[in-house]
This record gives sequence, C-alpha cells and structure tokens, in this order.
Amino acid sequence: MKHGIRVAGLLLALTFGVATTGVGKPVTVDQLLVNAPPQDWRSPDPDNTLYLEIPGGRVVIELAPRVAPAHVANIKLLVRAGYFNGLAIVRVQDNYVVQWDDRDHKRPIPTGVRPVAPEFTADRSAGRYFQTLPEHDVYAAEVGFLDGFPAGREPRSGNVWLAHCYGMVGVGRDDPPESDGTEMYAVIGNAPRQLDRNVTLVGRVLKGVELLSSLPRGSGEMGFYVGSEPPVPIASVHIAADVPAAERTPLEVLRTDSATFRTVLEQRRNRRESWFKFNPGHIELCNVPLPVRTPPARTQKR
Amino acid sequence: MKHGIRVAGLLLALTFGVATTGVGKPVTVDQLLVNAPPQDWRSPDPDNTLYLEIPGGRVVIELAPRVAPAHVANIKLLVRAGYFNGLAIVRVQDNYVVQWDDRDHKRPIPTGVRPVAPEFTADRSAGRYFQTLPEHDVYAAEVGFLDGFPAGREPRSGNVWLAHCYGMVGVGRDDPPESDGTEMYAVIGNAPRQLDRNVTLVGRVLKGVELLSSLPRGSGEMGFYVGSEPPVPIASVHIAADVPAAERTPLEVLRTDSATFRTVLEQRRNRRESWFKFNPGHIELCNVPLPVRTPPARTQKR
Repeated sequence: MKHGIRVAGLLLALTFGVATTGVGKPVTVDQLLVNAPPQDWRSPDPDNTLYLEIPGGRVVIELAPRVAPAHVANIKLLVRAGYFNGLAIVRVQDNYVVQWDDRDHKRPIPTGVRPVAPEFTADRSAGRYFQTLPEHDVYAAEVGFLDGFPAGREPRSGNVWLAHCYGMVGVGRDDPPESDGTEMYAVIGNAPRQLDRNVTLVGRVLKGVELLSSLPRGSGEMGFYVGSEPPVPIASVHIAADVPAAERTPLEVLRTDSATFRTVLEQRRNRRESWFKFNPGHIELCNVPLPVRTPPARTQKR
Repeated sequence: MKHGIRVAGLLLALTFGVATTGVGKPVTVDQLLVNAPPQDWRSPDPDNTLYLEIPGGRVVIELAPRVAPAHVANIKLLVRAGYFNGLAIVRVQDNYVVQWDDRDHKRPIPTGVRPVAPEFTADRSAGRYFQTLPEHDVYAAEVGFLDGFPAGREPRSGNVWLAHCYGMVGVGRDDPPESDGTEMYAVIGNAPRQLDRNVTLVGRVLKGVELLSSLPRGSGEMGFYVGSEPPVPIASVHIAADVPAAERTPLEVLRTDSATFRTVLEQRRNRRESWFKFNPGHIELCNVPLPVRTPPARTQKR
C-alpha cells in the first residue's frame, strides 16, 4: 500500500507513464518527452497568447484564431484596451466552468468591438488541418486535433470545431447567439461536450488551470459569487507579445502531428505497465494528454 | 450578453434545464424534480453512508456494498475503529484525484482488516441490477447504472463494474493489486475511465464534492502536498448509522429506475431549449446527472 493510487496517478501524471517502442522494456512518457527532438515542440504565437493575472499567479491561454477569428480579434481588442484589467472572476461552478466578465456591464465597450456571429464551427478551409483520432466518440462522428486543440469533425459536411475538454476557454453568449467576447470561461470539470457547436471556443489554458479550478465555488445559482463571497480580482489580462520578453512565460507545446505525440497517445491507449490489469485499448478525446513544457535552457531564444 | 454562459450553466446546473413532456412547452429539470413522486427518490442506507469531516464541512459518500463487499467491509471496520480520524488529505492532483490516507503508514491497522483481492468487477449476480444506457462508450461495450452508480458492462461475460466518473470514490492499490481500504481517493476531474476495472471503486460523493475539488493542488509529484503545504486535516470519518439522528445529513437520491430519471436523461440528451442551436442527441455516461436533494420537510421521517 506504499504506492497505491499514487501509482495510478504516477502513470497518469504524464511524467511517469510507460510505453513500448517496439519490443522490450516500456519507456516512460517522461522519457518520450525528454527525448523528443526539438522540432516536435512548437512555441505558441505570442500574439495569440493571453496572460490572465489573478492572485494565485498567471494563467496562460493559447488562442485559436483559425477557428474563431472574429472572436479572437474582439478579445485582442478588448485586452489591448485594458478592458479586463480590474474585472473579476465572478463565477466558479463545480465540475463545470470558471467565468470572468464585467458582471454589472458598466464598463464601456472599446471602439471596434461589437457582437459577432457565432463561430461554433471553423471555416471549411480549416478542415485540412484536422488530425483524426481513430477512437469513437459519443458526441461527434469524428474527433481529433486542430492546431493542437481537441476537436470534432463531421465527415459529410467537412465541418470542424473545437471540443469542450478540461481547460478549454470559450466566450459566453445569450440567445440570439451573437457575442462580443467580453464574457469568458474556462472548463474545470468533466468535459461538457453538449456545449460543442453551441458556444464559441477560443482557446485553451496552457499553464495555470489549477489556479482557476481550485478557486472557491460560488454559492449562488450556477456558482456565481454572492453575498460575502468576494469575486476573485483580475489584476490584468495581456497579450504575450505586448509584454517585455523578460516578463513572458516561455512555453512549448508538443506538436500533435509529431512522432512523439503519436507514441504518447499509443502509450495512453494501450497500457503495458504491470500495474494495469485491464488494458483500456482506447482513449477518449478529452483524456488525451496535450503536453506543455518550459523549454530547456539550451533551446531558449534568450 | 446579460446571461451569456450563465444561460448554458443554467441549463446544466440541473436546476434549470428544460425537457418536453410530449407536445408543448419545455419543462425544466427543476420542475421535473420538484414534481417527482416520492417513490422516485430513495434514501441511502445509513449503514453504507460515510461522513468525511474536513475543515470546509462534511463530505457525504454513499458506499457500494454490492460491487465491492470486501472493500466496503474493510472500510467500515476502519471507520468504526476510528482509523481515519486525525489523518489528512495528502494529495490533490488537478484534473484527477483527491486522496486521503496515512501517508507515513505508522497507524496500526485495526483487527480484522487485511488486504483483500481486487473487486474491479462485481459478482456476476449483480448484473441483474444493471440498467442500460443506450449510448455508445469509448471504454465499455455497454454503460448504464448499477444501484444508482455509473457503471459499465461486458455483454459476453455479463461482468459489471463501476465507472470513474466525477465524484466517484475508490481505494488505492499497489501492484500486486490487493488493498486493505486504508487509502481512499475521489475523482475531481475529467473522468479517468482508463482506471475502470483497474482500481476498486467503492462509492460516490453525494454531497460536498466541491469541498474536495476546490482544495489547493499539491505541488509535489502527482499533486502530493510537500514542504510548507500542510495536508488538509480530517477531523473524523463516521458511518451515518453511528451518528445521532439529529446530526445526520438527510439526503435523497433520484432512483435511476424511475420515470423521472428517464425524463431527466432524455432532457439532457435532446436539448429543446432555444439556447441550444445544435442538439447533441446523445449523452456520455459521466455527463448524466444523478440528482441528490435534501428531502422536503413533509417527507422527512423526523
């Protein structure tokens, strides 16, 4: 009992899983990642990376301009106008979402920002970037990855869209469904996939999702903070490109079209560690690890 | 933008969803639950209900003696011997599990408690209580519910097992896989279904899961608390039957074999609210709500 579930966690913590490369001893996912060639990693575009500064620290969000260009453009205008600075996280609903916005809708909307049509699915031309995961899925005819984000695809129409996995970031909307990007949320629970194609997703938390998911839950309806529960202040939201290089958070994301990613995926699909007594043989879209790392010193640009 | 994602949350918060009963205006899930006849609710057996008392309050766990009789028997012996009192939550791993145990393994194991064989699947006779959900699943040939818990089933063998959905509670183990029940965990992230049939699940959190899921994440490997991070103390663990009636937490769980449950399920599968622009048409096992309520005053026994 010394290890117990520690062992399971260890295998799942992405730092100690094991795979096999052909015949022989299982290789840990940690080893796979350490041994990945530099070209298997990509640096997120600083012009499409957000830094959300909250009391617990910095939350880094990668935006998805190919899927939601109009919403991403709105968000960048809002950020560069300082719209989110001094606002707050107003809602934390357990097993669902964390939401930040101007609850009272008193703050003026910056020039150039207006409600835009939903971007529930990407432009048809994005389909060529879709990488298929062979697994079945309850909510989509096909699933896989698009620009490194978990995604769905409808083979008949060729439509692709992002999927509401843990850590995905979206834009709240009303009905009719136009939205201006002023209301944002991140998924902190079991993937609410019923929202796919119903809300515009704009990105994913690369680092710091635990700063959001560990916030106290609001006791109001749908997890809104009420009464004596103070909303969690947002010091600022910046675009990484606008932050001095020395103050940026260097990160690299494993390319989903890399050989290393395919090996990691296979390791997670077929568990060869002796701890696993039953081999799942499959993996669900939202359980696929999308590794992020601090680049090793030697590969850092500065 | 006044409602935005609030609307989505509202529909998902289980208190404001809408269904249709035949033709006509959608009915909210809240209304469905309020209008459910008393016989659609069940009171969990106090002899198989745990109260985990932590600084944030009481976490109520329903045990699954039909699926894991030996582990449940061990846990009840441990609880009645006061084994967990004064121990701590030692690990909080984001998007995965919260774990409590005697990290140093110094506490003597009470008489009668010994490592037992895994109960990854239930005894074959439990299959008759399995209720099928027609949806496909990535990890199991068949999914559904067993004694109100999310479950999987292999039609050829007739084996049934509990599924690692949000809030499910299990018993850590090492390899070889015997375990004595001294190390427990609860799922606080996207369902780690690869653990199904690999760890013995013993129950589900009925109330207070947010007290676990909002705990600070440990910064050690696999989310263990290290250094200056104090483990979260467990004042006590009791069996509800051993607690004076006035100090119990009255709860009722919607029966998964009730007409109301079937209507709630259908409401969540096919979304008829105007907010939903795309109807998912399906529901994944771990997204099925398993409603719990405080019984209305008129139906309380005392």
